[in-house]
Order: sequence, then structure tokens, then C-alpha cells
Amino acid sequence: MPSDRLSRQIAFLIEADKLKTIDRRTPLTDGSRPENSAEHSWHLGLAALTLSEYGGGVNVPRVLELLTVHDLVEIDAGDTFAYDAAANVTKAERERAAADRIFGLLPADQAAYLHAAWKEFEAFETRASRFANALDRLQALLQNMQAGGGSWTEHRITRSQVLKRMAPVESALPDIWPLVLDVIDRFCRIGAIAKE
Amino acid sequence: MPSDRLSRQIAFLIEADKLKTIDRRTPLTDGSRPENSAEHSWHLGLAALTLSEYGGGVNVPRVLELLTVHDLVEIDAGDTFAYDAAANVTKAERERAAADRIFGLLPADQAAYLHAAWKEFEAFETRASRFANALDRLQALLQNMQAGGGSWTEHRITRSQVLKRMAPVESALPDIWPLVLDVIDRFCRIGAIAKE
Repeated sequence: MPSDRLSRQIAFLIEADKLKTIDRRTPLTDGSRPENSAEHSWHLGLAALTLSEYGGGVNVPRVLELLTVHDLVEIDAGDTFAYDAAANVTKAERERAAADRIFGLLPADQAAYLHAAWKEFEAFETRASRFANALDRLQALLQNMQAGGGSWTEHRITRSQVLKRMAPVESALPDIWPLVLDVIDRFCRIGAIAKE
Repeated sequence: MPSDRLSRQIAFLIEADKLKTIDRRTPLTDGSRPENSAEHSWHLGLAALTLSEYGGGVNVPRVLELLTVHDLVEIDAGDTFAYDAAANVTKAERERAAADRIFGLLPADQAAYLHAAWKEFEAFETRASRFANALDRLQALLQNMQAGGGSWTEHRITRSQVLKRMAPVESALPDIWPLVLDVIDRFCRIGAIAKE
């Protein structure tokens, strides 16, 4: 019989598998299907390793911790579409309850540690959080760009909505911001992002 | 225009998206579909954070680096089924060529760094590599266990094949080895792992 501690850790890892069934609104770059939140989380980890030099000395190991757990709450709360104002009103409460349950599967010390990592990601206060959130926004832009418009086109998202959503990139990854603006301008010109 | 350096980094991240389309033989825990290599890589990162205490002081940030890049070569080389002896003869050469091309998309310094991380994972020489590889084996066992047999049953894998495949868990995660043996015994008894 495994110890109670190991049993809880294994139960948490098994529960986490469900994140692979949570679809986001952004498509794969080939447009073949929606991206799920588990593979998205991996892609952000790779982005953190690749783009760390733009993070102003950010603590990359901490960023990887934040990114690994940042979407786990979606197992219960679902992926809340960034541009769905109504759903975003209830998002915080739904996700708080989800975090209590999901991290609560772990032994208490680990539950507290990973729950704190999720809260840090959500709070946008530390450099690691701001960098991780900026990658989260940038990655969605790259997915939509490669898919020819993706969720922007499908949901008739406007330029000002995209600019607001991408604002964390401007502050945390200023060297990458011109690329973001260029993509937005380009997709406005072809009508894939709505003028207003 | 973004710098050549940033353009290469973005091109690498876009190329990496293809890992989400590489199916493994192991199913999701609910058996609904095969797991893909991108979401699998995320799951291993979470396992590294959750099970680090069994790693004998392993360098967890390095483990996360290894795990994040460990399957990227599959974009070109495909996922080679662990129990397919013929495919494993050509695996090393196919993956070497893939690593040259895929990491080569990056600026030279980063290409060298991440290529070295992949080689370290493959070599089983460092503690980080042995820990990461043990997680890779353990996670497949948990997926098959939850799915009621998964790739073991589908491909009539035998007890001795599973034991050989799981050997890295015995050496790198000795405290978890009894759990592995218990799962193997249980699935042998119900015939989901073949006797020989």
C-alpha cells in the first residue's frame, strides 16, 4: 500500500489529466481543432524558455511553476473566453472554488504551495506573474495569426478588444510589442479583426 | 520588422505547435482518445513539481527544462512506440536528424542550449535525466491504469516487457516502485497485461 501522502499525489496527477479535455477558443496553428488547456500550458513553458531574455531578469523556474499550474482550475470552471464579458463576471468565484478542490487533493503543504503559485499567476503583481501572463496573451495571438484569424474572426472581436487583451505584452515584453501591433494591424487590414 | 533573433524564436515556437498533433499510444485516463505529446509533456512537468521529494535532491528547474523539450523531435520523427522493437532500431537516427532541424530554427546559442537539454534527457546520465525519464515511464503506467489497460491491452504487452520499460522508476523513484509493481500485478491478474 502506498503512503497516504503518495496516494494523494497520484490522485492529484490523475485528476489533472482532465485538463487535456478542456478546449480553449484559440485553434491549433493549422486550424484543425481547438487547442486544449494542457497542451497550451506546455507551449507556454516552451515560450518561457525561448523568450526569457525579454523578461528583464525574470525568475524563469518560478515562471515555469506558475505556467504549469495556471489553468488547472479550468477542470472545474471551464475555459472562460477572454472576450466574454458576462462569463468573466463569475470567473473569479468559479475559479476560486475550483482551486480549493483541485489543489486540495494534494497533501496540505503541496496544496498550499501550488495554490499560492496559481494565486501569484492571477494577481499580476510579481515580475514572474506579469511575464507568464504576457506569454499567455502572446501565444494566443500567435495561434490566431497562424490560423488566419482564429477566435478573433469567429467571434468578431474588435481591434480595441485585442489591444486591451494584449496590454500585458506591452508592459512585460516591450521588445515584442511592435510585433504584436504589426500582427493586429495586418489582421485589421484583411478584416480578420473587426475595425470597431 | 522584428529582429532576426526574435523572428527565429517566434518561428521555433510556431513550429513547436505541431507537437500537439503527435499522438502517443497511451490514452487519456478516460480512454476517449490517444494522448498527444504536447499535453503529455505538460503532465510530466506537473508530475515533476508534485513528486520532486522522491528525487533525492534533484534539480527540479533543470528537470522542467528537459521535460519541456524532450519530445519535440517527434514533430519529425513521430512517437516511437516503446514496445515496437523494429521502430526502435531506427529511432535514434530519426530523432538526431529531427533535433538538428527543429532546434536549428532557433538562434545558435539557444539551439545549442535546448539541443543539449534534449541530449541530456536521452542519455540517462544525470540525476535530472534519470528522474525525468522515470516520470515519463510512471505517467504512461498511470494513464494505462486509469484507462483499464490502454496500450498494454491493445498491443498484448507482456509482464516482462512492462517491467523492463518501468525499470527507470525502480532506480530513480525507489519509493514509488512498490506502487508500480502493485499496478503491474493487478493488471496481470485481470489479463490486461499478458503473462508471457
